[in-house]
Amino acid sequence: MRLYHDPRAPNPRRVRMYLAEKGLLDGLELVEVSIAANAHQTPEFLETTPLGLIPVLQLDDGRTLRESMAICRYFEELHPTPPMFGATAWDRAQVEQWGRHAELEVLFPVAQVFRNSHAFWLGRIKQAPEFAEIMRDLLAQRLRWLDHELGTRRYLAGDTFSIADQTLLAAIDFAKVSGIRLGDDTRNLKRWHAEVSERPSSRA
Amino acid sequence: MRLYHDPRAPNPRRVRMYLAEKGLLDGLELVEVSIAANAHQTPEFLETTPLGLIPVLQLDDGRTLRESMAICRYFEELHPTPPMFGATAWDRAQVEQWGRHAELEVLFPVAQVFRNSHAFWLGRIKQAPEFAEIMRDLLAQRLRWLDHELGTRRYLAGDTFSIADQTLLAAIDFAKVSGIRLGDDTRNLKRWHAEVSERPSSRA
Repeated sequence: MRLYHDPRAPNPRRVRMYLAEKGLLDGLELVEVSIAANAHQTPEFLETTPLGLIPVLQLDDGRTLRESMAICRYFEELHPTPPMFGATAWDRAQVEQWGRHAELEVLFPVAQVFRNSHAFWLGRIKQAPEFAEIMRDLLAQRLRWLDHELGTRRYLAGDTFSIADQTLLAAIDFAKVSGIRLGDDTRNLKRWHAEVSERPSSRA
Repeated sequence: MRLYHDPRAPNPRRVRMYLAEKGLLDGLELVEVSIAANAHQTPEFLETTPLGLIPVLQLDDGRTLRESMAICRYFEELHPTPPMFGATAWDRAQVEQWGRHAELEVLFPVAQVFRNSHAFWLGRIKQAPEFAEIMRDLLAQRLRWLDHELGTRRYLAGDTFSIADQTLLAAIDFAKVSGIRLGDDTRNLKRWHAEVSERPSSRA
């Protein structure tokens, strides 16, 4: 199987980290698609995936699967141990809730700050700097909220490391590109960040 | 169990439609939380759910579950038949992929057009009308893409009705609030919309 990815983008990174945590990364062929070089918008690549979104998984029979969480969930079905989406029905509901919070309340504003205010996109897409500022403010609130949450437990969804932590890690690390860093007012979040960053899978 | 919802918002609607399709809606106590009346931001409600996001599921023992898809997936585990998230590993991957496309490529821009340009939010949140225009343009592209896709099959994720269709239906219907309607250039999408709208669950 083949994984089309960009080493610098947060969505491919959370898929690579997931696969590394499961011990599956070495079994895949990684194919780099550079967003900076516009390689995700070539006619050839758009035949693989119509919107040019990455990552994309390509099975050996040619079928493709898009969307980070669809890819991870598919591998989770094929290789359920160790569970990264929760071990019981309620745990899985919690992982899904916190994974979506990490995505919609953190990764999403981080991505919108980047798209709407970073020089990387200047002249490539239409930007709305005013929206980037709104997202920066939202993000500061959301990080304080997560800091409070992480004062009550070890990992985002409970006492067990999960895909929700990997989404949050990918989001927070990618925020640095836009000059957003964890401040001293988020000590619990920094404790969590240091701990999850030490996992070998976090280097994937 | 109790479901906090707003009858006019798209996220609670997709949860209600899911529960109706599974025959579970009548077993829940529905509690209306009016966003228009700011009932989602009262201190009492924020004790139930810290960000004031709806819908929220409250179990009989008081535990709460947030996020539409976490709520639907939890019910899917308790009541797996008929499957609304796919019947095989590959089907489930497809439903997840298309459900996320419906959410991120349609419901998300629809929500951002509403938040950033509609009079409903004027004076209640900071708006970025320029971003609303960017999202309107994106949405028009995405609807043409989905129109092309729905020329090849009956439902969004294949031949079987799924949660992905319900997310897309909630998004498209909510777009009307911002004056966005399916045009004559999206005949396949209109065929699909007419068909899924006829299901009794779509009135939930």
